[in-house]
Amino acid sequence: MPDTAWQAKDLLTIRGLEKGQVELILDTAESFREVASRPIKKVPSLRGRTLLGLFFEPSTRTSSSFEIAAKRLSADWVSFSSASSSLAKGESLIDTARNLEAMAPDLVVVRHGHPGVPRMLAERLGCSVVNAGDGAHEHPTQALLDAFTIRRSKGRLEGLEVAIIGDIEHSRVARSNIHLLLLMGARVTVAGPRPMMPLGIEQMGVEVAFSTEDAVRDADVVMMLRLQLERHGATRFPSLREYFEVFALTEKRLAGAKDDVIILHPGPMNRGVEIASEVADGPYSVILEQVANGVAVRMAVLYLLTLRREEGE
Amino acid sequence: MPDTAWQAKDLLTIRGLEKGQVELILDTAESFREVASRPIKKVPSLRGRTLLGLFFEPSTRTSSSFEIAAKRLSADWVSFSSASSSLAKGESLIDTARNLEAMAPDLVVVRHGHPGVPRMLAERLGCSVVNAGDGAHEHPTQALLDAFTIRRSKGRLEGLEVAIIGDIEHSRVARSNIHLLLLMGARVTVAGPRPMMPLGIEQMGVEVAFSTEDAVRDADVVMMLRLQLERHGATRFPSLREYFEVFALTEKRLAGAKDDVIILHPGPMNRGVEIASEVADGPYSVILEQVANGVAVRMAVLYLLTLRREEGE
Amino acid sequence: MPDTAWQAKDLLTIRGLEKGQVELILDTAESFREVASRPIKKVPSLRGRTLLGLFFEPSTRTSSSFEIAAKRLSADWVSFSSASSSLAKGESLIDTARNLEAMAPDLVVVRHGHPGVPRMLAERLGCSVVNAGDGAHEHPTQALLDAFTIRRSKGRLEGLEVAIIGDIEHSRVARSNIHLLLLMGARVTVAGPRPMMPLGIEQMGVEVAFSTEDAVRDADVVMMLRLQLERHGATRFPSLREYFEVFALTEKRLAGAKDDVIILHPGPMNRGVEIASEVADGPYSVILEQVANGVAVRMAVLYLLTLRREEGE
Repeated sequence: MPDTAWQAKDLLTIRGLEKGQVELILDTAESFREVASRPIKKVPSLRGRTLLGLFFEPSTRTSSSFEIAAKRLSADWVSFSSASSSLAKGESLIDTARNLEAMAPDLVVVRHGHPGVPRMLAERLGCSVVNAGDGAHEHPTQALLDAFTIRRSKGRLEGLEVAIIGDIEHSRVARSNIHLLLLMGARVTVAGPRPMMPLGIEQMGVEVAFSTEDAVRDADVVMMLRLQLERHGATRFPSLREYFEVFALTEKRLAGAKDDVIILHPGPMNRGVEIASEVADGPYSVILEQVANGVAVRMAVLYLLTLRREEGE
Repeated sequence: MPDTAWQAKDLLTIRGLEKGQVELILDTAESFREVASRPIKKVPSLRGRTLLGLFFEPSTRTSSSFEIAAKRLSADWVSFSSASSSLAKGESLIDTARNLEAMAPDLVVVRHGHPGVPRMLAERLGCSVVNAGDGAHEHPTQALLDAFTIRRSKGRLEGLEVAIIGDIEHSRVARSNIHLLLLMGARVTVAGPRPMMPLGIEQMGVEVAFSTEDAVRDADVVMMLRLQLERHGATRFPSLREYFEVFALTEKRLAGAKDDVIILHPGPMNRGVEIASEVADGPYSVILEQVANGVAVRMAVLYLLTLRREEGE
Repeated sequence: MPDTAWQAKDLLTIRGLEKGQVELILDTAESFREVASRPIKKVPSLRGRTLLGLFFEPSTRTSSSFEIAAKRLSADWVSFSSASSSLAKGESLIDTARNLEAMAPDLVVVRHGHPGVPRMLAERLGCSVVNAGDGAHEHPTQALLDAFTIRRSKGRLEGLEVAIIGDIEHSRVARSNIHLLLLMGARVTVAGPRPMMPLGIEQMGVEVAFSTEDAVRDADVVMMLRLQLERHGATRFPSLREYFEVFALTEKRLAGAKDDVIILHPGPMNRGVEIASEVADGPYSVILEQVANGVAVRMAVLYLLTLRREEGE
């Protein structure tokens, strides 16, 4: 098992992480990655630890990725969804969390529709808190698994040209990725419909392009965002067809990218909306590797934070 | 632990299985059956394996039977229901399944309302797929546990007279059982209201009777089907009372069967609709043994398919 | 591991327990309590046992408390909620339970909105049944964890003055606590709005007070009940504000209690309705200790009942 030099109690945002912390997570994930290819996909690292999943938004891939990661570390995973919780009885989120904490979990994974909920919990709980997505704010383990996937493919993050395309304003995936990629020395270009582009986005240190073609030109990495159809009605964008015609990643639009470009998407994909199926399933796509790597990265995060607690306190 | 000569990646239908495959499953189930009577109801066979349950239809007994089977084999069981899944976000079933597969499960158990979904997944996934019921198509583990229950009671399947009574047309249980019983050399008579009897059913190799009395005459085994009240409104059959009066299995109607007849029902039962309570709870009923045997048969299926993977590939 | 002299198959009510049984549970819980403070929060006592959770009412803290207790005992925990169960298909509760029992669980934990359901199941099932709350009837593990919390704080139960305040009539928590406290030799005073006070409550052996101030005078322990807002509309009590003004536990009202009074609440709390936040979070509150102790007490109950089965039969 990897030695841990991890100090922080929580993983709430990418913003504020140091380069060394990111490298420690990615290196640890590397050492866990091969566990999935063993017949016995299990290490004893977190045997007898209690990890709680609090998912206040529906989720398949993220909650299952954490659950599988926890079980492969031999931890006990106990999961709650909002539907079955005391929140239905009007209890405050903080009381719910404090009550859960009184049961002595080692770590809580939380997804919530409102930005800042994970931080609020982390400030009040003694145990570790991992943000599994909070509103349009951050989704740090997604950015870490994206970085891990890019690094495995390209051997590095520094100096890469990365295009991020879609609804930048409402995407926690975009926000976490921009922070992480810039921290690690990549160059980031964003593109998307104007109503989905935050004012002053340039001040984060990214380039802004006005079309998918412009954004992908010479890109090493293209990261497509999910158009959150459940969020927008027809109000923000005239039609899905039009979105596809203007912004979707198609084979033709990919022509300007580097020859060894890789395509990422956090899923779930809207095929024929933000991405053409031939690209999603094509030779440059690393979308399923992202999912596989997600388990390894989450194993690393659960491992580092949980074991930090004993040593640090 | 039993040696495995199992070759097939998936268990999707009974149709297409060979006799030797059925016998291997039933013999393996026999060796797992006594695990449930031990104080420590667990064997280490699938330790560190990840098994996924994808239940797109509500289910208590089937999903819990698989979950208990998985845990008694020491596997990690991770379960999804449609409500909490990305399907709610419009993702295609295949993308959901591919994503789950990227997390490196050894096997996926799937129940779905549409026939053919398990096969579609099996064709696209590298891991094993077990059909836990697909629409009105097949429910192979149910037929296997029924056969296991009959064989334990009668010592054999060959030459037995089996009556299957109810909504034959819409029953995956009936379809899987007919294939399995005929394969193993039993004789099958079906009965039910005419609108619930498939045209040309005789071509499957079964006898057709026009009443419950006729069907059960000289039967060794009577298998009652659940009237799927949630499927039919009042449209197909005038009234539940009338169904009971004409087709239900009552003590009186059972009189013509063999003296040592056994009664099966896949559950959940509609007491007073397709079966009288005194029969369901009576001396010939093996309905609760079916449930108990279900765990052993599913242990066998999970065991054989999961361990096949290593050896076959 | 503690030796067990436990004989009873089920834990359905506090009423009917003997003093020695309560002491055995509390002493066993004491020996499990420190497990939560170990890095490896797990003992092998129930390895390979199958425990089922049947929650027909939504629950966070109780179901998670049992789940965590089960996992810390190394048991396999399989959980059902009514939404996903065959009950949706019209199956009777008894048939559901019998079917689950056929899968050979060692113990079933059941919560249900109707009083008496756990007893009905216990009479029909061979395995142990634990009542996790049945309507307004009883909630024995809550009373046990309350008693455990009081005993740890005060060193004893006998001779203590305990005030229980709120909707006595509809509270299973109150009912179980009254039985338990009186059995163990405490003196109990109840208070609450008149429509929430059962007629003839004095015959249980408790004092009745007409205000929170009167009830808490000289109390060693004050137990506030949750106002079940989801049960009462505005019908039983004019307004939440009025409830707060008349019955809520505030710092001021607490003044008459003993100097070392402790405050309990079963949760989830309605802050500003039955309890002021400064009391809930104040120095006398042991509310979060209750939650922590709940896991230890449930470990004790699961342990004693499950292992009783082998020795007794």
